[in-house]
Amino acid sequence: MTTSYKRLDKDNAAVLLVDHQAGLLSLVRDIDPDRFKNNVLALADLAKYFELPTILTTSFETGPNGPLMPELKSLFPDAPYIARPGQINAWDNEDFVKAIKATGKKQLIIAGVVTEVCVAFPALSALAEGFEVFVVTDASGTFNELTRQSAWDRMSSSGAQLMTWFGLACELHRDWRNDVEGLATLFSNHIPDYRNLMTSYNTLTSAK
Amino acid sequence: MTTSYKRLDKDNAAVLLVDHQAGLLSLVRDIDPDRFKNNVLALADLAKYFELPTILTTSFETGPNGPLMPELKSLFPDAPYIARPGQINAWDNEDFVKAIKATGKKQLIIAGVVTEVCVAFPALSALAEGFEVFVVTDASGTFNELTRQSAWDRMSSSGAQLMTWFGLACELHRDWRNDVEGLATLFSNHIPDYRNLMTSYNTLTSAK
Amino acid sequence: MTTSYKRLDKDNAAVLLVDHQAGLLSLVRDIDPDRFKNNVLALADLAKYFELPTILTTSFETGPNGPLMPELKSLFPDAPYIARPGQINAWDNEDFVKAIKATGKKQLIIAGVVTEVCVAFPALSALAEGFEVFVVTDASGTFNELTRQSAWDRMSSSGAQLMTWFGLACELHRDWRNDVEGLATLFSNHIPDYRNLMTSYNTLTSAK
Amino acid sequence: MTTSYKRLDKDNAAVLLVDHQAGLLSLVRDIDPDRFKNNVLALADLAKYFELPTILTTSFETGPNGPLMPELKSLFPDAPYIARPGQINAWDNEDFVKAIKATGKKQLIIAGVVTEVCVAFPALSALAEGFEVFVVTDASGTFNELTRQSAWDRMSSSGAQLMTWFGLACELHRDWRNDVEGLATLFSNHIPDYRNLMTSYNTLTSAK
Amino acid sequence: MTTSYKRLDKDNAAVLLVDHQAGLLSLVRDIDPDRFKNNVLALADLAKYFELPTILTTSFETGPNGPLMPELKSLFPDAPYIARPGQINAWDNEDFVKAIKATGKKQLIIAGVVTEVCVAFPALSALAEGFEVFVVTDASGTFNELTRQSAWDRMSSSGAQLMTWFGLACELHRDWRNDVEGLATLFSNHIPDYRNLMTSYNTLTSAK
Amino acid sequence: MTTSYKRLDKDNAAVLLVDHQAGLLSLVRDIDPDRFKNNVLALADLAKYFELPTILTTSFETGPNGPLMPELKSLFPDAPYIARPGQINAWDNEDFVKAIKATGKKQLIIAGVVTEVCVAFPALSALAEGFEVFVVTDASGTFNELTRQSAWDRMSSSGAQLMTWFGLACELHRDWRNDVEGLATLFSNHIPDYRNLMTSYNTLTSAK
Amino acid sequence: MTTSYKRLDKDNAAVLLVDHQAGLLSLVRDIDPDRFKNNVLALADLAKYFELPTILTTSFETGPNGPLMPELKSLFPDAPYIARPGQINAWDNEDFVKAIKATGKKQLIIAGVVTEVCVAFPALSALAEGFEVFVVTDASGTFNELTRQSAWDRMSSSGAQLMTWFGLACELHRDWRNDVEGLATLFSNHIPDYRNLMTSYNTLTSAK
Amino acid sequence: MTTSYKRLDKDNAAVLLVDHQAGLLSLVRDIDPDRFKNNVLALADLAKYFELPTILTTSFETGPNGPLMPELKSLFPDAPYIARPGQINAWDNEDFVKAIKATGKKQLIIAGVVTEVCVAFPALSALAEGFEVFVVTDASGTFNELTRQSAWDRMSSSGAQLMTWFGLACELHRDWRNDVEGLATLFSNHIPDYRNLMTSYNTLTSAK
Repeated sequence: MTTSYKRLDKDNAAVLLVDHQAGLLSLVRDIDPDRFKNNVLALADLAKYFELPTILTTSFETGPNGPLMPELKSLFPDAPYIARPGQINAWDNEDFVKAIKATGKKQLIIAGVVTEVCVAFPALSALAEGFEVFVVTDASGTFNELTRQSAWDRMSSSGAQLMTWFGLACELHRDWRNDVEGLATLFSNHIPDYRNLMTSYNTLTSAK
Repeated sequence: MTTSYKRLDKDNAAVLLVDHQAGLLSLVRDIDPDRFKNNVLALADLAKYFELPTILTTSFETGPNGPLMPELKSLFPDAPYIARPGQINAWDNEDFVKAIKATGKKQLIIAGVVTEVCVAFPALSALAEGFEVFVVTDASGTFNELTRQSAWDRMSSSGAQLMTWFGLACELHRDWRNDVEGLATLFSNHIPDYRNLMTSYNTLTSAK
Repeated sequence: MTTSYKRLDKDNAAVLLVDHQAGLLSLVRDIDPDRFKNNVLALADLAKYFELPTILTTSFETGPNGPLMPELKSLFPDAPYIARPGQINAWDNEDFVKAIKATGKKQLIIAGVVTEVCVAFPALSALAEGFEVFVVTDASGTFNELTRQSAWDRMSSSGAQLMTWFGLACELHRDWRNDVEGLATLFSNHIPDYRNLMTSYNTLTSAK
Repeated sequence: MTTSYKRLDKDNAAVLLVDHQAGLLSLVRDIDPDRFKNNVLALADLAKYFELPTILTTSFETGPNGPLMPELKSLFPDAPYIARPGQINAWDNEDFVKAIKATGKKQLIIAGVVTEVCVAFPALSALAEGFEVFVVTDASGTFNELTRQSAWDRMSSSGAQLMTWFGLACELHRDWRNDVEGLATLFSNHIPDYRNLMTSYNTLTSAK
Repeated sequence: MTTSYKRLDKDNAAVLLVDHQAGLLSLVRDIDPDRFKNNVLALADLAKYFELPTILTTSFETGPNGPLMPELKSLFPDAPYIARPGQINAWDNEDFVKAIKATGKKQLIIAGVVTEVCVAFPALSALAEGFEVFVVTDASGTFNELTRQSAWDRMSSSGAQLMTWFGLACELHRDWRNDVEGLATLFSNHIPDYRNLMTSYNTLTSAK
Repeated sequence: MTTSYKRLDKDNAAVLLVDHQAGLLSLVRDIDPDRFKNNVLALADLAKYFELPTILTTSFETGPNGPLMPELKSLFPDAPYIARPGQINAWDNEDFVKAIKATGKKQLIIAGVVTEVCVAFPALSALAEGFEVFVVTDASGTFNELTRQSAWDRMSSSGAQLMTWFGLACELHRDWRNDVEGLATLFSNHIPDYRNLMTSYNTLTSAK
Repeated sequence: MTTSYKRLDKDNAAVLLVDHQAGLLSLVRDIDPDRFKNNVLALADLAKYFELPTILTTSFETGPNGPLMPELKSLFPDAPYIARPGQINAWDNEDFVKAIKATGKKQLIIAGVVTEVCVAFPALSALAEGFEVFVVTDASGTFNELTRQSAWDRMSSSGAQLMTWFGLACELHRDWRNDVEGLATLFSNHIPDYRNLMTSYNTLTSAK
Repeated sequence: MTTSYKRLDKDNAAVLLVDHQAGLLSLVRDIDPDRFKNNVLALADLAKYFELPTILTTSFETGPNGPLMPELKSLFPDAPYIARPGQINAWDNEDFVKAIKATGKKQLIIAGVVTEVCVAFPALSALAEGFEVFVVTDASGTFNELTRQSAWDRMSSSGAQLMTWFGLACELHRDWRNDVEGLATLFSNHIPDYRNLMTSYNTLTSAK
């Protein structure tokens, strides 16, 4: 008996960034803030890099939840941006689902704050409608590890693929030869250890 | 192949609070006591807020296990209260099951102390009778993390949905517009970070 | 769709204690030694208390693995004791399987050192032969948490029930009224927090 | 309903060592470097010991990823060695798959750096082609625990067996009597606690 | 050689609450928010209970740092309240020091956010002027444990006494007979484990 | 410049066990209960073994704090036992200090619950009166690690020696030849790893 | 007895950045790399912001230790840059000490990799020559926490002040009114939580 | 006021290896065994490399404590080897102290098992006799972190320098130019991260 490999395809994937808002970010305590900010920006950068259709949404952004991270706004000036008037599960918002369906993609890459709500609810809804769902676990944050583990268990049990931004980038890219420099830049900007490798490498090879 | 989304519906859900007794609470060491007390009271408050039928039960409350947390008693003065004479699995008590069935609900939200016994046993029994079971992982406590992980694995493998009180509240509420103030008050009372957001927000907007 | 509840039945369960040997115990580093020793003895005590058929086995006990914990030897002087001449998976030893089948029980409670070998191998073999398997996670130890998590995942994926000795005791006992004092003594001897509850309770009630 | 036991068979297993390169090793932070190096070398030693066909592969070894760990090169001088020109998923490289199929084995033991990419991608591909896959979790490393947990969840959900090098060695060996000294040497070289047991044992028995 | 015991004296102590502001509280990540909020309120309650002169101060409260926790404002309506126009070290603000000196007390109990700045700076200044300084470590918060340890080391090396609110309460109270009920109420309101003890105790003794 | 070595001398040392009461023990969360119980009993056993004068004291034992651990009562039936009527710092109780002075010892070994109060207060008082103070850190417990670290810092800064029961036993014993069997029995009863060593050793040597 | 407050004075302080080299950075495992990179750059930014004389030094930068972090090179193009030919303790290099003395400052702020060598050695040398030394603990990294704790203990015992970059910035700035925007920008660039506060604040106040 | 720098001098230092015995090693649980073994051997290698006089001692090596690690025996075949007949504090053994004094060195580098006894006792004795003491914290092990912290506090308070083997090696070597290859080999053999740096470096530079 074989298991099919749900493999990301850059021609069939869209990215959903759900509720990365300045207020809600202060609730995230399962990942340290330096790392979390880096992960979210890495995911955004890879969405740009692979030219994946990207959809932004926020919940109540004029209240205490606060505005979207400004970096996301400026990275995706032309992306559909759905400021939900009240729906907690973004999938309950018709415009959001319409925007997704307009992309024609069947693989949805989802990240958001907080994991068990803003990520899990649309992920479960999308799975129920037949989409393949890839949760970006390290660009999604929540109150603590116990909360995260519960949310992961619920999503994984329903068939969501748990991945991180680095795994996503690698699975989308497939082959370094498609663009060595582009991928290396992405890694260098978001993985200090990789940047160090490149610094040493470049110094030694340019010294030849 | 799609996966159905077992989604909480406030018109079809009941809450079971199992053995949150003063003595047994001293056994809980997988969650710090300040946080645990807050989680249990948050769950109780949300049950009140959504007017979910709630059932209280205790095990041997006249012995070392001790009396129910007084806060729960006073929050639910009219709820069915089953002081079990000896059954460890609450589902083995006819009155408890009768009280559940009397609600007519098919979705059971369960929390209790200790997780691998007072929660897991009735959860597994309810699943076997066709109920949908939602375990409130952060309002359930046990001896240590190893014990918790074992209990979660057993329940999840049998189809229980692992959730936390915050996820429950959001899934039940569906849309902020149903009652902004009510939900915000619930969050403010039980999430210090959220209260801080509201304090800053209210100060700034009332200063206008 | 309902899920059947694989529930322990004291009339249908046997206990397998695999390789709790003095040498091998020094390899256990995922559980602190005071707690681990207590968990193993608690499991042994409950096997005695519920009069479950118990089978002891060791691996190479005359070599560096060392002799069985003396406490286990003296608790079960008449239990089948299989000192395996070389088989790593106890299930590969005919005498061991014969002893199990001789009990006529279909539910096997397994604990041992180390988890991913001495527990997992016979657990997987037993599952493959149609037994119900209950792994006592806290009376089984191994090198570190990463090793434990791998082992749990493998066993759980194959249908093993992950439990702890306390959960076992409660599921086997079913109802405090079957013997309040016996169960309370078991808990008091192996759960310091429970003993404290009893000490306070007894002092206050005897003072009346 | 019984569950089949996917049991390692030394006559039907091959080992794939993916991208244990000097540069990439500096990215591994979920396992401490002393332990990780030991685990990788233990896996290599056991592959030699059981004479399992072993395949080495690297990704971009002339760039910052760096050369293969020299110890692996010298342990397997005659093994197929595929320096991939660009494919991230080793399974996308025809030579790699051809080398695997040339072994005629149906059980693949995989370890690599980093877990969610270099291990998970070929593992998922192999499962999709009907191989039995055994991931050596402790000889595979990645950025942090969150990343590891996501990768494990994805692989386990697709049917991979999560194991550690010690479990592998025991499942392959089956019976100490096949070669007591060989296995003991393997353990003594890679498990300091086991070496201590042997040191004490040998001293005492040779003193007789 | 004897060491003098710098012992708190409720007739010679004042409490300084420095910058517990809604915005700054979101920076505190070395203590979980449920526990931290509880600790701060416990300290405030004990200041009231022992009628210690208490001084409130904030930094830039009209900016992102946000307003003081409302609970503190309402607990101490008549306390000196110094909204500092810019000084980071509260001791650089003349009004603050004047208010302290006006109390005539020589023992200063200090807590604040963040530990290495809002607590450490005035603590070091006060020590340099000959005050005895008692830092309330658990009602002071900062970015992470590394930051906290650095701050503690600097303060302790200069002679500050590191204490927690519970230790403070006990050292100030000296003898339960001074007011059993008052102290017990303080503990019951802020220590869930203690409340549980009291619940069980009261139930059992009132049942006589 | 040399530093004098404050070395324990069994002819000049007394043991103070402060408030190891059934209720207060439920507050101890910085050490796991199996280990903590073992440490307290190990300290008691060594006090007996070295025949050190031992003094027991409790705080409000008829209230929620509960009775002294029964094991301590029975181990020291003839020891001075001061049930303090209200003093929190045991040193404020004249009978307690009188009992200490009656021993004529200048080295005080102190353990208790909770560390920052029941241990630290009398420790600081004793240091101020010129005693040498040895805090048994692992037989003293408190709410959490932050609390413990504060308490240790305060005591160490005042000159207390921080030790554990094992270190105490070794420093008091000086030379194994004084009584090999006695010390080995003490270790075997309270250190599972040591018992394992002895089990293997005895088996091998008796097999000769 | 008062304790003098060794307070940073921006007119009397110089910054020493020791061996933040691409190769050595891969040895740092006591702080996660995202956070560590941020801390080092924050320290560099504050040195620029306060116009503190800054001295760069490296050890063997043409070997495996690798080149200095390029960001540091470009931030301080005109700073003294001492590529040490071999001295491990930078203080043993005459040019380094000469450069320090040329600044005329008496307060030395030191950070480097690895803490117990590149930071501790010059810190101890500087203290021995009468400088005031401020170690930037969070911009200094080493192999693990045990190593860090040893290094801190050695430096603190010799009189070094342990601080973090945030504490440094605050102690140097003294008063927000000296330049609100400058300090806020520094914080916003290096403290994600603070940036979130500012984002929400700016949105709300600009919306008026 | 300056603080003197107690700096290691290879012409004035001796190494004491206390009780690294096969049995006692199984008690060490504050450091993972792979890392601990590596640290001890690294210390031994550096003692050889710097030709420091080295003294070996054991406690009761014919009993359960077991024989000295064989690697140490073979590395120092001609070193003084004191098998103590019973003294727990090695300093109480005349031969041991005589061997130390015979070296004529005033700086003692001490490591052993367990930290609070076999290291702390002779360290305190040596300090009291005017030696400079350097504790190798990472080549000394004990039961758990609490035990270690107590032991470190006691030794540090008495003036011992807490160091690790890497810091020792660097402080003894002073200048890479004294022998680049020798030091690099030491690091490469005991620091996997450093070996990786060298592997990449050598590959790139030899490829020129």
